[in-house]
Amino acid sequence: MASQQSVLMDLSQTLRETSGTTVVDAQASGVQLSGSDAWSVSRRMLHEGPSDGVEVVNLCNGPLTVSILPTRGMGLWKAEYRDIPIGWNSPNRFPVHPRHVNLQSRNGLGWLDGFNELLCRCGLAFNGPPGLDEGAASPIESEVTLHGRIANTAAHHVSASVDDAGAGTISVRGEVDETTLFGPKLRLVSTVSSVAGSNAFTIVDEVTNMGAAEAELQLLYHTNVGRPFLEGDARILCPVREVCPRDARAAEGVDEIERYLPPTSGYAEQAYFFDLLADEQGESLVLLHNAAGDRGLSVHFDRQQLPCFTLWKCTQSEEDGYVTGLEPGTNFPNFKADERRLGRVRQIGPGETYRTTLRIEVHGSADSVSEVADRIRDLQSATEARVHREPTGPFCP
Amino acid sequence: MASQQSVLMDLSQTLRETSGTTVVDAQASGVQLSGSDAWSVSRRMLHEGPSDGVEVVNLCNGPLTVSILPTRGMGLWKAEYRDIPIGWNSPNRFPVHPRHVNLQSRNGLGWLDGFNELLCRCGLAFNGPPGLDEGAASPIESEVTLHGRIANTAAHHVSASVDDAGAGTISVRGEVDETTLFGPKLRLVSTVSSVAGSNAFTIVDEVTNMGAAEAELQLLYHTNVGRPFLEGDARILCPVREVCPRDARAAEGVDEIERYLPPTSGYAEQAYFFDLLADEQGESLVLLHNAAGDRGLSVHFDRQQLPCFTLWKCTQSEEDGYVTGLEPGTNFPNFKADERRLGRVRQIGPGETYRTTLRIEVHGSADSVSEVADRIRDLQSATEARVHREPTGPFCP
Amino acid sequence: MASQQSVLMDLSQTLRETSGTTVVDAQASGVQLSGSDAWSVSRRMLHEGPSDGVEVVNLCNGPLTVSILPTRGMGLWKAEYRDIPIGWNSPNRFPVHPRHVNLQSRNGLGWLDGFNELLCRCGLAFNGPPGLDEGAASPIESEVTLHGRIANTAAHHVSASVDDAGAGTISVRGEVDETTLFGPKLRLVSTVSSVAGSNAFTIVDEVTNMGAAEAELQLLYHTNVGRPFLEGDARILCPVREVCPRDARAAEGVDEIERYLPPTSGYAEQAYFFDLLADEQGESLVLLHNAAGDRGLSVHFDRQQLPCFTLWKCTQSEEDGYVTGLEPGTNFPNFKADERRLGRVRQIGPGETYRTTLRIEVHGSADSVSEVADRIRDLQSATEARVHREPTGPFCP
Repeated sequence: MASQQSVLMDLSQTLRETSGTTVVDAQASGVQLSGSDAWSVSRRMLHEGPSDGVEVVNLCNGPLTVSILPTRGMGLWKAEYRDIPIGWNSPNRFPVHPRHVNLQSRNGLGWLDGFNELLCRCGLAFNGPPGLDEGAASPIESEVTLHGRIANTAAHHVSASVDDAGAGTISVRGEVDETTLFGPKLRLVSTVSSVAGSNAFTIVDEVTNMGAAEAELQLLYHTNVGRPFLEGDARILCPVREVCPRDARAAEGVDEIERYLPPTSGYAEQAYFFDLLADEQGESLVLLHNAAGDRGLSVHFDRQQLPCFTLWKCTQSEEDGYVTGLEPGTNFPNFKADERRLGRVRQIGPGETYRTTLRIEVHGSADSVSEVADRIRDLQSATEARVHREPTGPFCP
Repeated sequence: MASQQSVLMDLSQTLRETSGTTVVDAQASGVQLSGSDAWSVSRRMLHEGPSDGVEVVNLCNGPLTVSILPTRGMGLWKAEYRDIPIGWNSPNRFPVHPRHVNLQSRNGLGWLDGFNELLCRCGLAFNGPPGLDEGAASPIESEVTLHGRIANTAAHHVSASVDDAGAGTISVRGEVDETTLFGPKLRLVSTVSSVAGSNAFTIVDEVTNMGAAEAELQLLYHTNVGRPFLEGDARILCPVREVCPRDARAAEGVDEIERYLPPTSGYAEQAYFFDLLADEQGESLVLLHNAAGDRGLSVHFDRQQLPCFTLWKCTQSEEDGYVTGLEPGTNFPNFKADERRLGRVRQIGPGETYRTTLRIEVHGSADSVSEVADRIRDLQSATEARVHREPTGPFCP
Repeated sequence: MASQQSVLMDLSQTLRETSGTTVVDAQASGVQLSGSDAWSVSRRMLHEGPSDGVEVVNLCNGPLTVSILPTRGMGLWKAEYRDIPIGWNSPNRFPVHPRHVNLQSRNGLGWLDGFNELLCRCGLAFNGPPGLDEGAASPIESEVTLHGRIANTAAHHVSASVDDAGAGTISVRGEVDETTLFGPKLRLVSTVSSVAGSNAFTIVDEVTNMGAAEAELQLLYHTNVGRPFLEGDARILCPVREVCPRDARAAEGVDEIERYLPPTSGYAEQAYFFDLLADEQGESLVLLHNAAGDRGLSVHFDRQQLPCFTLWKCTQSEEDGYVTGLEPGTNFPNFKADERRLGRVRQIGPGETYRTTLRIEVHGSADSVSEVADRIRDLQSATEARVHREPTGPFCP
């Protein structure tokens, strides 16, 4: 039978009329996927406290469910694979509606008040720490707040589709506009998809400059993972060309980058900037796995699209948020003015689109973990990692 | 038959219970208007992205439909007259819920993030550019952000009514409070009305000082128009006593005020301050028409109520927002402290009401355009326009 | 019959699905309370203007109804006892959804834009005037805005219950999180309860430090009362150990603290800081009553839990908000850095809970008023009040 792409439904049309939960599955849609007969896409609204009005779209491929938050810029709240939870426990217990996040507050660090996702984007016009960007085109663009606006901007035109080619693929798509008069006019079109029955999902993002002049772009994928992947003696494996500590605090841990501490009261965050190796197709990847090596999560991306990888270690107490961030980006999360000077702020022309692809795989067995670990070791085999012991340019300003 | 005013329905009571669209028309209400049998008032909520929760009330008089946004301070999103769209294409594609507009952000220019209407008010306690108003009564009032709060304040007590006198009139009314403890206590009661079958609608606004002390008022009608009225060689006609460029950039165009450029990449905005002539009834008017002179839009207002007219030319690329603003106001949009010094900030006493009337007519034929153009030329005939070539007081600070 | 505690319903589950009003009463629940057969708990959403999306839960014990605002941090909008309204008329006419309150705006005084309750909490990480707290742990905590965040944070897990022991008690409970990554992690669990048929209600608050490090706590109950309790010649009775005017303006009225003015145009607020006496059980109380002495409202609290009592006199014009505040707190509402220096910022350890109890009684007859007044005079009888005529430490910074 020939492959057939059938649009199941436009969630934004069919599902938004109701405040309850709506589920589309194989039965409801009449579409069987050979990879799994238990796929579904569902939509519901949260109504509790600061989550009131937050839309959640669950993409389930059978064994794997990904919870997408259109209201929070198409971020991924959490996922679950065969009873393995994927995400972390933020002190912000629930998804926070953007209306309750004042990016300016807390001296420009208000973004932290809404931060609790497995994956959120930092961008699009800027990311990194807050401050006054004196190189900005105008006062409309010079006020930089932590990690930008996109994670707190609601998506429109949210839709779902299935393609029954091969094992079958389920997709959810949404558009997020970061626009203003006399300022940036960037549109993110994000598609989260997953092959039925698989252990992985893919994010394809297209950021288009809708304006008539060149625009700046910064885009970083803040991918945040806690237990059961992160624990004492958990490991992060990366194919490293070069790595550099962000600051003096990170420099303290430069001999132990690969290894994680258990929850540690009073631990202060450490961040490392990586230049990673890629395979012949240009794909780079990193792997986080638990101490026993039988639970792992790998992040795969195109090194050309996302040349800067940041590792964030935040192994503080469970109550405060025990987490690590695996963060591929167009840039390192230094202050925008510094990144511009170092050539890491992208320029995209009028009508131009910047495309990124990110794939996350979940590994539920020692074999699956070993396979990815071996692939990373193979990539590393021909190259000796260069490890800077102190903050160094061009990684650091 | 004697004229009879019948309140059709209180939208705020009857229509708010549902999240779908509700329509009241001649059939549903049993009220026939002699001007048109195709009138209606409808209400719906938007649910997409940053528009989620925005209420739209459509007032249709037959050939003309005006879309009112109670959620955005009774602003007018757009209108349509016999298939002629009235409004513009802002880079902010959809009406933005005020909760997504942080007026403080972008160095006090956050108002731009929600700006996409055909008509929005700038005020009530202040309008013009942001800054610290050192003449303010207290810290509660001294923080001035671009164009004030009213366009991002939600209306309450929204209702609709019809009056079958004459051709019949359809009205939508709402109240918007700009109040705080120890600060301004201003209530706007806005009524948008239209005669059945006509090519025009009228806004009657009453701003009342609800407090026990004198209050300051600034009110400007940011009326924004794009195609098909605005285009290369489109014209703006005004009965001019005096006109003055706002700044050096505007001074560059002082010989070409009347004429518009086509969309022009890199065009920087130009603004002109006018002292307009009025007819014997005190009405002043301006006319924007297309190059062929067969599509026009005229704005009519009482020169006593709205003595300051600002013309905003913003003929940048279509993608960036090709638009012109026809802006009658109580003041020019200079910084509030300057306007106060120049005597253009209104004082309204306790319980006092400031009333304004604004009428917008759509002209769909060369005859209709000519008729208004002739009226403006008549007004001008007795007076030679005084054109300042440079920014000059008392127009400019 | 043995006492039986029966959970009536979880409002957050059962009632949130609908946008209309839901009522649970003796009939609907099958629970009779001996104190009154006319008890109920109801829930509805407001849809008007800036109130859109605000949830109101009415707890009715028969003669007394308390309106709770989960959306506004479990604040109390107003109450009513046998046709006596309890609350005040703020220039902010309706409950304001937190999304419309920008705490940073108005130079950090934006909290005033949402202030109209009978009772709202000031806290939890800070209260008092805005400013930069240089003693804060980090930039995440140093930006202090007027009276903190809790009154503009939405509650989750809102539920209701009844206990038929004795006359029977009706309760409404909600949780409010004031948390962020790298900052305070405080959870308020508030329970408002009332004995069926009684003239009183009680608030029991438990604030728990959910984080792994010590946290600071400031908590003040801004209890605001207008007519018919407040009027010209109304009185405030307190058992006073010491009292001190906040500033020079308050010092002007130090001989007249007990007595209230009628609405007075141009009146500037006066505040007094009290060290109150308590009875043998540690309870302190204050009484506001009208000129005739036949309408009174008393506030009862544990002096150990809430050692600082602030009296706020704001007898300005009715239109501007004629009101007095009876404000028990852990601290006086001075700037946080000053309160810290003076030892009045609480430290709560990881997992620790700070508990407060506040009871409000309504007195609808001269007898009931006299009884409480006598109790206060008894408390005072053994101690002469020390009245500072000028701002003095440690009350003032």
